[in-house]
Amino acid sequence: MAILVVGSVALDSIETPFGKAENVLGGSATYFSVSASFFTPVNLVAVVGEDFPKKHILFLKKRGVDTKGLEIADGNTFRWKGKYDYDFNNAATIYTRLNVFEHFRPKIPQEYKRSGLLFLANIDPDLQLAVMKQVEKPKLTACDTMNYWIINKKRSVIEVAKKVDIFLLNEAEARQLSGESNLLKAGRSILRLGPKKVVIKKGEHGVLLFSHGSIFSAPAYLLEMINDPTGAGDTFAGGFIGYLGKRGKITDSEIKKGIIYGTVMASYAVEDFSLRRLSSITIRDIERRYKDYERLTRV
Amino acid sequence: MAILVVGSVALDSIETPFGKAENVLGGSATYFSVSASFFTPVNLVAVVGEDFPKKHILFLKKRGVDTKGLEIADGNTFRWKGKYDYDFNNAATIYTRLNVFEHFRPKIPQEYKRSGLLFLANIDPDLQLAVMKQVEKPKLTACDTMNYWIINKKRSVIEVAKKVDIFLLNEAEARQLSGESNLLKAGRSILRLGPKKVVIKKGEHGVLLFSHGSIFSAPAYLLEMINDPTGAGDTFAGGFIGYLGKRGKITDSEIKKGIIYGTVMASYAVEDFSLRRLSSITIRDIERRYKDYERLTRV
Repeated sequence: MAILVVGSVALDSIETPFGKAENVLGGSATYFSVSASFFTPVNLVAVVGEDFPKKHILFLKKRGVDTKGLEIADGNTFRWKGKYDYDFNNAATIYTRLNVFEHFRPKIPQEYKRSGLLFLANIDPDLQLAVMKQVEKPKLTACDTMNYWIINKKRSVIEVAKKVDIFLLNEAEARQLSGESNLLKAGRSILRLGPKKVVIKKGEHGVLLFSHGSIFSAPAYLLEMINDPTGAGDTFAGGFIGYLGKRGKITDSEIKKGIIYGTVMASYAVEDFSLRRLSSITIRDIERRYKDYERLTRV
Repeated sequence: MAILVVGSVALDSIETPFGKAENVLGGSATYFSVSASFFTPVNLVAVVGEDFPKKHILFLKKRGVDTKGLEIADGNTFRWKGKYDYDFNNAATIYTRLNVFEHFRPKIPQEYKRSGLLFLANIDPDLQLAVMKQVEKPKLTACDTMNYWIINKKRSVIEVAKKVDIFLLNEAEARQLSGESNLLKAGRSILRLGPKKVVIKKGEHGVLLFSHGSIFSAPAYLLEMINDPTGAGDTFAGGFIGYLGKRGKITDSEIKKGIIYGTVMASYAVEDFSLRRLSSITIRDIERRYKDYERLTRV
């Protein structure tokens, strides 16, 4: 099944204790699309400016991402500059230049409207709601969000949570949205908002999957070197939802396997800046690391 | 198989954001003994002062802990006062009064010298080495340590690491001892010092078990409420080594199951102050939570 993803495509400048990168390919929908493309066809809806390098579009196409929905608008591409300290869980934003992203109103091409799966990457929750209205009921809808929207548009975020099947967010966002410092309480509280599943991403500490009646805890893959955590969450979501698209059936067992494929994809993403590492791997590498992960966690 | 444990028995005063307790039963060997006692006989070697309440000794005996090796010396019992903030990973020490513990020279009773398993709880590494010399070669020797000894007696800590089968320490101590900030590198580096296994305790983020050639990552059990993390690591070790004592055979698979029993025991310890929660549970509770844990982590 194909996935329709709506989110940001950006040019990032990033500094970590282990290096830096200037104006490199980034954005939530980019990381998601490239990650999911290893598993299933991806239809991308986003906006870039006239300054967006053609090579990035070629790269996405080469990965099997359909870019018909990638609008090229007058102006500059969304740019973000961030800096990480040794604590990779928090980036300090140096600047955010929304540019063409500021007036982004996702228009879903006709041929995308029947994509089997929908992923609403981190954008304004009102736009996420508008996208849901434009498409025919997908087999599964998942979304991500960020602290900014929880603070400024909490009501809309809750509206989104009511309508999606899977709600993904990170540890701090889960605490913020629920008002619970304990993650078990936070996950259960968000589940009560309406989604069938809540996925709390804990970075290097793994992932918690909350279902009605059960919880699944998956530790992260262990790495000797993390160079840049940017996009880890979106890459996780891409592997997770991408795997479900490939399998076509959405059972609890497939969802757990998807969580592990997401974990594996994220582990590759953080090994290098931007999409560099993800652009150098094959499905064989992914399967090998999936098996490593099984060995790492099997009793 | 019986376990010989050598460590501290203390009276703790603890403050957390969720409550406080004054002069309650504590100490590394206490938490270890009570936890292990659910699985196998425990022989305790430690020292207390004349002020040590008899009821605590009765409690230990009731739990099947042999207290022949619990010396009652002239003076006061070791006392520690600590305070935790919402970050339960670090306690601020208000005071440490070693009292009779300062001159503790463990004397192993004759009938303890052939205990099948030896656990060297956190004490001066030179005393840990002296204990190893006093006993007949156990089937398995495990130890714990703390930052103070890594800073002040690093050479002795390394000497202990060379001689034990299983070396347990927490995340910060692993980084400190190895000089590696990355935990994967830290675990592998400590493994090269000599032990067959290294266990890195990550508190609420679970445990990593390093063997030569493989790693096992076990997430923590999820709790809605943590009241006092004191003793969690020693309780973990008690469940872990206690289970191995019960089984009698020490295979990789049994060691992993032991890690999970340790995780389960620690999850009970932190639910209340001191040994309160551990004194209220039965083996049936432990088995039930073990099954819950399996469900939590099974793909």
